Amino acid sequence: MIKVGIVGGTGYTGVELLRLLARHPNVQLQAITSRKEAGMPVAQMFPSLRQHVDLAFSTPEKAALSQCDVVFFATPNTVAMQEARALYAAGVRMIDLSADFRLPNIAEWEQWYKAQHACPELVAQAVYGLCEIHREKIRSARIVANPGCYPTAVQLGLWPLVRAGVVDTEHLIADAKSGVSGAGRKAEINTLYAEASENFAAYNIAGHRHLPEIKHHLSHATGQSIGLTFVPHLTPMVRGMMATLYARITKETDFQALYDTAYTHEPFVDVMPMGSLPDTRSVRGANTCRIGLHRPHHGDTLVVLSVIDNLTKGAAGQAVQNMNLMFGFEETAGLDLVAVVP
Amino acid sequence: MIKVGIVGGTGYTGVELLRLLARHPNVQLQAITSRKEAGMPVAQMFPSLRQHVDLAFSTPEKAALSQCDVVFFATPNTVAMQEARALYAAGVRMIDLSADFRLPNIAEWEQWYKAQHACPELVAQAVYGLCEIHREKIRSARIVANPGCYPTAVQLGLWPLVRAGVVDTEHLIADAKSGVSGAGRKAEINTLYAEASENFAAYNIAGHRHLPEIKHHLSHATGQSIGLTFVPHLTPMVRGMMATLYARITKETDFQALYDTAYTHEPFVDVMPMGSLPDTRSVRGANTCRIGLHRPHHGDTLVVLSVIDNLTKGAAGQAVQNMNLMFGFEETAGLDLVAVVP
Amino acid sequence: MIKVGIVGGTGYTGVELLRLLARHPNVQLQAITSRKEAGMPVAQMFPSLRQHVDLAFSTPEKAALSQCDVVFFATPNTVAMQEARALYAAGVRMIDLSADFRLPNIAEWEQWYKAQHACPELVAQAVYGLCEIHREKIRSARIVANPGCYPTAVQLGLWPLVRAGVVDTEHLIADAKSGVSGAGRKAEINTLYAEASENFAAYNIAGHRHLPEIKHHLSHATGQSIGLTFVPHLTPMVRGMMATLYARITKETDFQALYDTAYTHEPFVDVMPMGSLPDTRSVRGANTCRIGLHRPHHGDTLVVLSVIDNLTKGAAGQAVQNMNLMFGFEETAGLDLVAVVP
Amino acid sequence: MIKVGIVGGTGYTGVELLRLLARHPNVQLQAITSRKEAGMPVAQMFPSLRQHVDLAFSTPEKAALSQCDVVFFATPNTVAMQEARALYAAGVRMIDLSADFRLPNIAEWEQWYKAQHACPELVAQAVYGLCEIHREKIRSARIVANPGCYPTAVQLGLWPLVRAGVVDTEHLIADAKSGVSGAGRKAEINTLYAEASENFAAYNIAGHRHLPEIKHHLSHATGQSIGLTFVPHLTPMVRGMMATLYARITKETDFQALYDTAYTHEPFVDVMPMGSLPDTRSVRGANTCRIGLHRPHHGDTLVVLSVIDNLTKGAAGQAVQNMNLMFGFEETAGLDLVAVVP
Repeated sequence: MIKVGIVGGTGYTGVELLRLLARHPNVQLQAITSRKEAGMPVAQMFPSLRQHVDLAFSTPEKAALSQCDVVFFATPNTVAMQEARALYAAGVRMIDLSADFRLPNIAEWEQWYKAQHACPELVAQAVYGLCEIHREKIRSARIVANPGCYPTAVQLGLWPLVRAGVVDTEHLIADAKSGVSGAGRKAEINTLYAEASENFAAYNIAGHRHLPEIKHHLSHATGQSIGLTFVPHLTPMVRGMMATLYARITKETDFQALYDTAYTHEPFVDVMPMGSLPDTRSVRGANTCRIGLHRPHHGDTLVVLSVIDNLTKGAAGQAVQNMNLMFGFEETAGLDLVAVVP
Repeated sequence: MIKVGIVGGTGYTGVELLRLLARHPNVQLQAITSRKEAGMPVAQMFPSLRQHVDLAFSTPEKAALSQCDVVFFATPNTVAMQEARALYAAGVRMIDLSADFRLPNIAEWEQWYKAQHACPELVAQAVYGLCEIHREKIRSARIVANPGCYPTAVQLGLWPLVRAGVVDTEHLIADAKSGVSGAGRKAEINTLYAEASENFAAYNIAGHRHLPEIKHHLSHATGQSIGLTFVPHLTPMVRGMMATLYARITKETDFQALYDTAYTHEPFVDVMPMGSLPDTRSVRGANTCRIGLHRPHHGDTLVVLSVIDNLTKGAAGQAVQNMNLMFGFEETAGLDLVAVVP
Repeated sequence: MIKVGIVGGTGYTGVELLRLLARHPNVQLQAITSRKEAGMPVAQMFPSLRQHVDLAFSTPEKAALSQCDVVFFATPNTVAMQEARALYAAGVRMIDLSADFRLPNIAEWEQWYKAQHACPELVAQAVYGLCEIHREKIRSARIVANPGCYPTAVQLGLWPLVRAGVVDTEHLIADAKSGVSGAGRKAEINTLYAEASENFAAYNIAGHRHLPEIKHHLSHATGQSIGLTFVPHLTPMVRGMMATLYARITKETDFQALYDTAYTHEPFVDVMPMGSLPDTRSVRGANTCRIGLHRPHHGDTLVVLSVIDNLTKGAAGQAVQNMNLMFGFEETAGLDLVAVVP
Repeated sequence: MIKVGIVGGTGYTGVELLRLLARHPNVQLQAITSRKEAGMPVAQMFPSLRQHVDLAFSTPEKAALSQCDVVFFATPNTVAMQEARALYAAGVRMIDLSADFRLPNIAEWEQWYKAQHACPELVAQAVYGLCEIHREKIRSARIVANPGCYPTAVQLGLWPLVRAGVVDTEHLIADAKSGVSGAGRKAEINTLYAEASENFAAYNIAGHRHLPEIKHHLSHATGQSIGLTFVPHLTPMVRGMMATLYARITKETDFQALYDTAYTHEPFVDVMPMGSLPDTRSVRGANTCRIGLHRPHHGDTLVVLSVIDNLTKGAAGQAVQNMNLMFGFEETAGLDLVAVVP
């Protein structure tokens, strides 16, 4: 049993972490901090956790996070970087579900996130936690930068193809659709029920922060130069994400075999047979990325469908998978989840 | 053509008013005020109004509301009462979609709305704008208190029964369900898509502000003492409201005939045959209240189903109906709307 | 490990059973029958089960159900009663999720279900599987009639009150709201997305088949005569059910204490503090019934809110709970589920 | 006033046609046929039409369609072609909302629709009813093939670009998302609420019937050879369609100006300023196609967002627009609809 702390458990990635950790066989939940809600039982904010989580939110001061084995940051961007140094010094390992450690280029990070980075030297230490691609480095990481939801779906969907050098990597297209929970549990007009329901809309075409993350890490992992048109859309559902990926073929090969081989031993990537249509509900609440490959009319454009639950494989589930790797647990511990269908 | 002003057009009742007034044959839209959004074209906030509404939001100072024939308040509670005196003095007629003029008992209003009323003398002047019941008084009213959504559905559903004195009026039950737009266009956590979708919840059982409104006006209109258990629920849809009403029979009569007679000439109340099941989509976007009467197993409990669109007959549509009455237009002018189905 | 068979695994209660049984520590899934889909891997119909369920649908002939320890019927009404005799003779225990064994009065059953019952003598043997009320009988039952979803929510919500004889049991009201999955996985117009979304409707007021089930078993369990007005509604969500229950107080007592006491040791009934507002998502995918008690304005009407997931505690979860009781497993085995929120 | 008949008014395009025609100033609704529902008042099937449509469904025999000025076919594919000859001979003009007259190449039609065409000679007569592109021919057409919903959104979104010859027309991509009403009012499992809600899925990538329609007519209208990867998705909303279109720039020009010019006088195409994000609800229930143009990071890929209401501009609204052109009415008659928001 390891001692686990959570900073900022009042959002959707926080409650999803709690859902998973409450049942994890190797975890003792030690503290959940929220300065604003200090003293309130967690299960009062989220009655779904009644009978499962007994903790109350506590102030960071009282939480004694430095005595935890690992701390998860389920916080808005720019919080984790403020607290990372002290925990690092105390020997606490960290998994950051926010974006603070995702871009190794500090200047680029500061440009996209419009803030000065508080601990550039720790960014250099951080390992990017896309488990399927960086598994070995994650095992020994002291800080893991848990990937964004779009970057998880897009990179798992493109990696085998890009790595093999068989498509035009300068003109990739990711037409991505996310459930509304991806916007977080923040009081904002544009994610109100009456705004987002019965509506479909693109957003942030001019520059979503996940774009540099995808480009950097996909390039880094494959050695290819990456050009990507990335169009995110908001779709009227709570959970779920689909990336519809388009790539122009530059070299013939057995594309399905590329994927089958790349993910054959992966417990959380499910490559379906050529021509399959994975839907988002098939991974709802599960830590799975499900992939289907298409080549319409035997033309020169490949279409890859990649679906995840944005809160599970796209956030808290992948964070737990990272923890499992870091502490030598079964990679699937606490993650043996069957999707909730219907 | 009358000159029409709107105070506070940035919420859902505001955009619904604009949808209706933009096509009204007797209306010239003069000004829409919003201090916060002054200068922004209305159609920039609501692109659905492009090509239909050319106005920009203006400050109250520039709006020259005192030169309008009628001003609608589509504002949060306690705004209209601040501005009513000046407009009243200027001879401008007013239709308030908020609650400021709904309760004639000032002390009761102040208790429920936790504020001091700014113009009690005008409350005494105001006419309660439930058109089917107070039509004649509305025609000459200078201030109309447009009813709340729940009060509209519940009162139209109970009025014939209560007036006839054939049920136990001390133990009425209104189990009401509202779409989420009823909560308004405010940045709040509990009406986020990810909170309200795939969820069903009761709220405010201990005391919803529409309870005293229903009790007072239903009693006033029928001469009966009213006891009411009112349980509102939030249901995962944008528009629509159903009140399921339960009343214990105290005297046998032809209940269906009570309703048929009460509403026979009403253009906006549709009494369906005994045993019918009106659904909320059948009135979506229309100014109709549709009613179905049931007597399960010929027992002593009557069940009345009353559905409206909370934004149309429950707010902006009824406000336009009130305007039509006040200015001698056809009562249905601008309201010849067919519900959008599916 | 017991050997488990499922008859009819192609519907929503079927896939929910599979979700639960796939992870149950004491269960070996032996066969799933579907004459129509024989030969198709279950995970092809429900890709959410890929990597979790390896079985294919088989014909009843090949399924060797008589060698199972227990067989679940997740079939339309009138199927289980046709197959029960042979399995009974073979010593196989049965849990019927359909309605075939729910009403001990055969004439009443035949009237409501419009069919001749195929095995009246086994109905007499069957135990009504509302675990909290009939736990002891269930342990030794050879046939369990798994309760309907509405009967589960309504009876758990009313039982402490009715048993105590402190309300007018002749005039109970159950205003119930169900997610659309309750209608089953059948090709029908009225449960199409485009019909049921953005819509709220009552149905079957004149006579829902769950009415006699509630009346009989609630009366039987409490010794009280029961009069009930039951109005079911369809609400636009997939899973979830709320029963809003109204009862007239006839005798003062500590109502909250009645519930606290009745369910104090129950793992799957969560009585919240007086005045709480349980919402359906707080039990989504979990086997929990969550209850909140209200007495508006200290009047003489009690309001009880009772929420379940119609597919879990309202169907497959309760069926697994029944299996656990029948075979002496931990009652919570395979049911340690945290609701999926958001 | 012209006499209008509708064949097959029981589906979603049928009820939408009725919503529009019921208020059309120049139309007298003469007959609606449905062999299956003959005798049933239309408003019994669709209570939203109570007080607006008095007709009952009639058999084709009794409908006297040959005395109508125009007949709309709101039927499944292959029905209109069976009845067209007789109506044509009787001098009745026709607007077919199904696919029977959309592909001039009969062999291609027969291949995609897997049927033998019943009246090839009339296909040659038919005019493709994309009003903005074929306005003049439509005025005198005797048979109009009303475009499919995807073809409307995609062609209006690509036409100015393709016509100008400034993009690689051999490698266009249309990532399209449709509300579920697009699947029609048919009892099918995969469009049940419990299947389509909280879910996002692609479908028919291997070959959607709208693909040849788009390719033929876009090529015909522009003189360009067209290569198109078309991926349709089902999105959990009732109405609404977005096509996200990707095109590789081959020649620099003022792209926004191409669109502004192309649609400057169009009442039903709204080109927003460069970088705008039209959402589907902004056209809900309206006959508008709203377009936004993007050039992310000044790269060589253009992104065009094109939204319509699939039942209005994508079906019945465009059909009424065609009727207006054919009979010399104001093109906007009966179509002065403001979108229902929220």
